[in-house]
Amino acid sequence: MDPRPLDALAKARDKKVIVETKAGKQYLGILRAFDIHINVVLDETEEREGGEVKRKLGNVFLRGDTIVLISPAA
Amino acid sequence: MDPRPLDALAKARDKKVIVETKAGKQYLGILRAFDIHINVVLDETEEREGGEVKRKLGNVFLRGDTIVLISPAA
Amino acid sequence: MDPRPLDALAKARDKKVIVETKAGKQYLGILRAFDIHINVVLDETEEREGGEVKRKLGNVFLRGDTIVLISPAA
Amino acid sequence: MDPRPLDALAKARDKKVIVETKAGKQYLGILRAFDIHINVVLDETEEREGGEVKRKLGNVFLRGDTIVLISPAA
Amino acid sequence: MDPRPLDALAKARDKKVIVETKAGKQYLGILRAFDIHINVVLDETEEREGGEVKRKLGNVFLRGDTIVLISPAA
Amino acid sequence: MDPRPLDALAKARDKKVIVETKAGKQYLGILRAFDIHINVVLDETEEREGGEVKRKLGNVFLRGDTIVLISPAA
Amino acid sequence: MDPRPLDALAKARDKKVIVETKAGKQYLGILRAFDIHINVVLDETEEREGGEVKRKLGNVFLRGDTIVLISPAA
Repeated sequence: MDPRPLDALAKARDKKVIVETKAGKQYLGILRAFDIHINVVLDETEEREGGEVKRKLGNVFLRGDTIVLISPAA
Repeated sequence: MDPRPLDALAKARDKKVIVETKAGKQYLGILRAFDIHINVVLDETEEREGGEVKRKLGNVFLRGDTIVLISPAA
Repeated sequence: MDPRPLDALAKARDKKVIVETKAGKQYLGILRAFDIHINVVLDETEEREGGEVKRKLGNVFLRGDTIVLISPAA
Repeated sequence: MDPRPLDALAKARDKKVIVETKAGKQYLGILRAFDIHINVVLDETEEREGGEVKRKLGNVFLRGDTIVLISPAA
Repeated sequence: MDPRPLDALAKARDKKVIVETKAGKQYLGILRAFDIHINVVLDETEEREGGEVKRKLGNVFLRGDTIVLISPAA
Repeated sequence: MDPRPLDALAKARDKKVIVETKAGKQYLGILRAFDIHINVVLDETEEREGGEVKRKLGNVFLRGDTIVLISPAA
Repeated sequence: MDPRPLDALAKARDKKVIVETKAGKQYLGILRAFDIHINVVLDETEEREGGEVKRKLGNVFLRGDTIVLISPAA
């Protein structure tokens, strides 16, 4: 079977990821959960904007509709 | 079973959360209810903008479509 | 059963509520009806913008898609 | 049974209504038809913007997606 | 049975209509086809902006999502 | 049976078309495929903006959600 | 059977593609996965803006909703 996009998210579970939103913000945290709407839950989350840490947020639920990309943190 | 994003919201029920909207507003209140559209109901809600309390709103229904993130209040 | 967001709207039926829209307007009126799309109908409606009454509208149907929040009027 | 938002539109059928759109325009006309998407058809329609009549349009189909509110014309 | 909005489009088939889009453009042409998404096909189409003819387009498929209103051309 | 909008696209298959997007760009190419979401695939595609050729793109998949109109190239 | 848009993506699998988003960014990488929502996963991804490489991102999940076009990299 051909790989599907959600498989890539499954592989990133419990690993550090960057989530970027339409509003141009970045959320750096450990990917704990996601669903088909690309709603995601991160732990130990830092919000960044323009490269700077803006806030420490701990556990965060991000609505899929606002998400542009998700990438493993280097 | 893998954890799902709505499980994180279920754990936050009856606890204080921050809800942020696409319009850049924050609603700080006690999470009473949510559904799969991420419509949420908060109690004892304060609306904040740019760090300042703008209004005390008590009970509030927020339409999921306008929500960016939900996080337990530190 | 856990409470659901629409239960909060059901409790507000026939009571005075504030409805706020994405365009930044407020509609103050008596909540007569709502559905799962959060389409709502208000009676004795006043439209406000920036705290000022702009218009008296009487009966109003508001499309759910434009609604940000609904809160019982204090 | 509790009243539903579309019941309010049904009562306004064949009566004069104001339809306001996300683009800030008003369409004043006789409500002839509507559906669950809130697509509506008006007759004898006047388009207004900022209180002024811009155009006489006669029969008009308005796509629900663009509609903010519908209210009986006073 | 109560009239439905798509009935109004059915009556306009093979007649000249104006289609207006969210981007503020007008397409004047003969309505050849439409569907429940309000995708439409026009023939002998003129694109207008601010009252001026911008282009002659002949046959045009317009995606429903971009359409604000459809009205028989006077 | 009444003609449907997708029939017009079917007739344009393997012919040169202009596709215009919400961002105001034009894609001129040979229509190879489309679906009910109006996702389209063009071959030998030129991207134009303000009447000028910006890029030669060859084979292009365009997401339906961004498309305003599709018209046979004159 | 007529070709469908997703067939074009299937042919591009494991090849280098450009993905452009509504925010005007380009992601150049190897297409590993896609689904009917046009969610895509790229490997060895470079983010570009205005022709310049902004970031090396490696593996990236891009939400379909933000995508304008996908084209094989020349």
